Amino acid sequence: MHVQDFQWKKGMTVKELTDAYGSIGFQSIELAKAADVIVKMKKESAKIFLTFTSNMATSGLRGFFAQLIRLKMANVIVTTVGGIEEDIMKATGETFSLGSFSSDDVALHEQGLNRVGNVLIKNESYMRFEDWITPVLAMLYEKQKRWAVSELLREIGLLLTDENSILYQAAKQNVPIFCPAITDGALGFHLYLFQQKHPDFIVDVVKDFGNILFSTSHDEKKGVIALGGSISKHHAILCTLLTGGADYAVYMTTAHKTSGSMSGATTEEAKSWGKVKDDSDIATVIGDVTILFPLAMIKALEELHAEGVVGDE
Amino acid sequence: MHVQDFQWKKGMTVKELTDAYGSIGFQSIELAKAADVIVKMKKESAKIFLTFTSNMATSGLRGFFAQLIRLKMANVIVTTVGGIEEDIMKATGETFSLGSFSSDDVALHEQGLNRVGNVLIKNESYMRFEDWITPVLAMLYEKQKRWAVSELLREIGLLLTDENSILYQAAKQNVPIFCPAITDGALGFHLYLFQQKHPDFIVDVVKDFGNILFSTSHDEKKGVIALGGSISKHHAILCTLLTGGADYAVYMTTAHKTSGSMSGATTEEAKSWGKVKDDSDIATVIGDVTILFPLAMIKALEELHAEGVVGDE
Amino acid sequence: MHVQDFQWKKGMTVKELTDAYGSIGFQSIELAKAADVIVKMKKESAKIFLTFTSNMATSGLRGFFAQLIRLKMANVIVTTVGGIEEDIMKATGETFSLGSFSSDDVALHEQGLNRVGNVLIKNESYMRFEDWITPVLAMLYEKQKRWAVSELLREIGLLLTDENSILYQAAKQNVPIFCPAITDGALGFHLYLFQQKHPDFIVDVVKDFGNILFSTSHDEKKGVIALGGSISKHHAILCTLLTGGADYAVYMTTAHKTSGSMSGATTEEAKSWGKVKDDSDIATVIGDVTILFPLAMIKALEELHAEGVVGDE
Amino acid sequence: MHVQDFQWKKGMTVKELTDAYGSIGFQSIELAKAADVIVKMKKESAKIFLTFTSNMATSGLRGFFAQLIRLKMANVIVTTVGGIEEDIMKATGETFSLGSFSSDDVALHEQGLNRVGNVLIKNESYMRFEDWITPVLAMLYEKQKRWAVSELLREIGLLLTDENSILYQAAKQNVPIFCPAITDGALGFHLYLFQQKHPDFIVDVVKDFGNILFSTSHDEKKGVIALGGSISKHHAILCTLLTGGADYAVYMTTAHKTSGSMSGATTEEAKSWGKVKDDSDIATVIGDVTILFPLAMIKALEELHAEGVVGDE
Repeated sequence: MHVQDFQWKKGMTVKELTDAYGSIGFQSIELAKAADVIVKMKKESAKIFLTFTSNMATSGLRGFFAQLIRLKMANVIVTTVGGIEEDIMKATGETFSLGSFSSDDVALHEQGLNRVGNVLIKNESYMRFEDWITPVLAMLYEKQKRWAVSELLREIGLLLTDENSILYQAAKQNVPIFCPAITDGALGFHLYLFQQKHPDFIVDVVKDFGNILFSTSHDEKKGVIALGGSISKHHAILCTLLTGGADYAVYMTTAHKTSGSMSGATTEEAKSWGKVKDDSDIATVIGDVTILFPLAMIKALEELHAEGVVGDE
Repeated sequence: MHVQDFQWKKGMTVKELTDAYGSIGFQSIELAKAADVIVKMKKESAKIFLTFTSNMATSGLRGFFAQLIRLKMANVIVTTVGGIEEDIMKATGETFSLGSFSSDDVALHEQGLNRVGNVLIKNESYMRFEDWITPVLAMLYEKQKRWAVSELLREIGLLLTDENSILYQAAKQNVPIFCPAITDGALGFHLYLFQQKHPDFIVDVVKDFGNILFSTSHDEKKGVIALGGSISKHHAILCTLLTGGADYAVYMTTAHKTSGSMSGATTEEAKSWGKVKDDSDIATVIGDVTILFPLAMIKALEELHAEGVVGDE
Repeated sequence: MHVQDFQWKKGMTVKELTDAYGSIGFQSIELAKAADVIVKMKKESAKIFLTFTSNMATSGLRGFFAQLIRLKMANVIVTTVGGIEEDIMKATGETFSLGSFSSDDVALHEQGLNRVGNVLIKNESYMRFEDWITPVLAMLYEKQKRWAVSELLREIGLLLTDENSILYQAAKQNVPIFCPAITDGALGFHLYLFQQKHPDFIVDVVKDFGNILFSTSHDEKKGVIALGGSISKHHAILCTLLTGGADYAVYMTTAHKTSGSMSGATTEEAKSWGKVKDDSDIATVIGDVTILFPLAMIKALEELHAEGVVGDE
Repeated sequence: MHVQDFQWKKGMTVKELTDAYGSIGFQSIELAKAADVIVKMKKESAKIFLTFTSNMATSGLRGFFAQLIRLKMANVIVTTVGGIEEDIMKATGETFSLGSFSSDDVALHEQGLNRVGNVLIKNESYMRFEDWITPVLAMLYEKQKRWAVSELLREIGLLLTDENSILYQAAKQNVPIFCPAITDGALGFHLYLFQQKHPDFIVDVVKDFGNILFSTSHDEKKGVIALGGSISKHHAILCTLLTGGADYAVYMTTAHKTSGSMSGATTEEAKSWGKVKDDSDIATVIGDVTILFPLAMIKALEELHAEGVVGDE
């Protein structure tokens, strides 16, 4: 393969651009490779674990994740609780506004705005979330006292009606959502307040570990698409390891391997799992997921759609 | 304040170097500032939340964390489960060897070695951890069926005897260890296996949310020292927010704010909590924690020791 | 402006995707903003300074840069000498192959391959470059003994015939190419060898400083598009500063501002030049240029073409 | 080698801490290795090429670089012109103040302050630099009309009297300073103005390429200490390559290899030069140079001083 001189063509599609990336050099090649690995895992009917951190659900990628679940491009979701809260907020009518990375944070505080990078969430959104979730918890408690996390999230998804909601689409498609640190957010506080009044209300994280293990099997092919780092990425890797290792892995992150963190760990290590034999089954792309992921996934979707593996948008 | 020309002096102490950092420029100034903020939070008797990711407990910082707990420089610990597992492994005789970031991972796999950056953990260490933890869980189950995470970790700490152990020192000093994603590791798997045989065994993460809230109060001054990002950092910030906001904050991380992640969020945002008014009470240092943290903390310890606020090593 | 849920549409164009980026969040917004600033600077007839580091000319972006010069999207080029050498190599028939970031460098050395990230350049390409440049220098020396760098590069460009060549298109369009560190590469060595035989051969970098100053004026609007950091970025900023300050600035880089380097300096500082008043005239995007630049520039080209400001590809 | 639990000891020296870094993990190990490689290159009497970017001379490292030249720890210097200007400014009485990375740049502009990260330079400092350099250029022109860059810088160094000045110490110790992009700064502008009045005044960068080549030889052992990236790093590598390859290399940088830039290139590539055979002769440390370099160099100095290889501070 040689480096090819890139040229703009009028009306260029995303697929044409990402095809061209394959011979530009540096991270553009890794991006094109990521698309290829995604195509491969889908065509080999691998069980696909899609993981993302909560800030990605805060961003506009949320609707894309919901669409991917609907298109059966994600079979298991792992995320952190902030993303779940914000998915529910949006599904119940809240909107997030766009700000700046270099805001005056004292002024924002006075305006009742919470900043996540350059995205702003109103205090009222959190208050209305509280108003919405409290009766839901009461209703779930009526059903049963002890809930595995993914089962609780599925029940919440069934209550939503927003096509762009991750929880809604996951519930509809029987895609489990795992969230190992379910208390690390506003939801944790509401669960705590509820338990204060109902001490026999239990969120069973240990049982959910069994659920994620049984979401796949040793015999099945497995693929991991990890966006960002943190617990979500680690949990999917851990689970696929315990069930024989992933066959395919795509990581996208701004973190580097040099600090020894999980966030920066590359797909090279996937080889140490003993299943991945070939560099063509793994790809690590360094950069901002809000830019990289649509590019790679759209290329994969266009190819899979052309072959009839994926349905209409 | 002016930039000062730095000069080596024979036998220079760490404190002399970090003092000099205060007038070199760029991140060295932030490092010196971090030490100052740590001194301030301790002298103001703030409740100190120390958070770190598991790879830091895998590294040699583990003994330093234990020492800091003993010296009462950390009143609340928040971490991820990998760090707890590795603390126990070391406390029960395992050793981790030093490798390379660019290892041949296929070869490592064949040798039964697991790589965390440039640190290697043997498969046998995980097996012996299983042998150790299984009877411990049985014993704890005898005591009670339902455990908040921090209470369970305290019991484990009481069983250890290693002065360099985080869990041992924390148990001895009544410092709670919070771990919101307790199942995201080998321990999660062992908890799951145990629950399979004992379905009434419950790890209560919701109750532990109350425990971390009550580890401090609105009236008390609070400081956060967050090493790396992830759930541990977020959990400490969340808890101090719910109890009125931290008064002091020091973040050390390799992540940048530009991707909107929690790992890269800076202490600037602390101002949006509405309590921190002054830049002199916050510091964000960008870099590898294994290098930065000892530098800043040693400068703080030397100053606090000189004033009699901290005891002998 | 609110965060909008992103959705894939079949056959999606690059422009549709980059439009959507404008309401996704994090760096995707900055990317959409960068496109807007480029459109603005072109429509305001600003003199556009395009700077890039040599590795970008090594990559497939080289053909894109040549196209942009042809489309009059770049009026002044600033780069480092490696990019000039590699542009000439490609224009005279050399090809670069695609490798891996984690190559066995000892093996590559034995095969006579030089690695630039994941792009490989053969030793023979350097040798044939020497064979080509040596008579060219002799011919130029016949014309005159003392050459300003940009004038020398223009003469070389006139000797080439490759439509994808940066030097060829620049010469054809009367776009000057500045290279303040002209000796920092293989070309430097050949210039040195030539001067050994012809001591009155002079490359006049001081004169070229005047040339870049007079490439624009105080009265003219000026825009800087800086890809990567280094001397090329600094030189364009310095020149526009001395001629009254740039009105528009787009920076794309993997470097962060936290180390105080030029590579990581953001467009915020452009405000300190005293001309830029408005955030809508500047954008800094963090990430790999091979991915980011085509995205932002294609969006700008499609818009400018639709309005008749830019011609056909 | 095993991971060792780190512990603070009262009055700990920098050498004790950097020794401990050798068994902590992640970048701390690379830092300890960097010190070892520096010790090795000095004890093997290698010619040491020290390169740094201009922002490091702006910082307080400037005095340290001067001290290292005096202690014969650097035999060849490569840097960018900003560093030279700021060294002269400080040597002639200017001071730089310490600010913040998140300054109000519009306000700074109104105060006549220029920001380099968190370091501030007054407009007057640039004006007084002009007043100082103009007669110096006239004096040098009287001596000869055509100057190689390093020869010109040596003459300037001889005019200074500041022990903390890089140019002063380099001139005194016959250490050449190379600056391939000599016009990329305020000095470039002054050179240009001077040439306008004296058209036969020539700065000969081509001749200086010969000077750097002859600063070492094929037979001599060579070591490169590259702080930051850019032209300075590339020029030292290029020169040692052309003279047979460096035997030792230490790189410290915040850049990563993933973008294919020179700034992020690691010492692994040094193996592709065909001379370095052993990992013990190279080290790459990721992080802020203002923190990392004093740590590694002080450890090296203490060891070399103890063995009598380096004199008193």
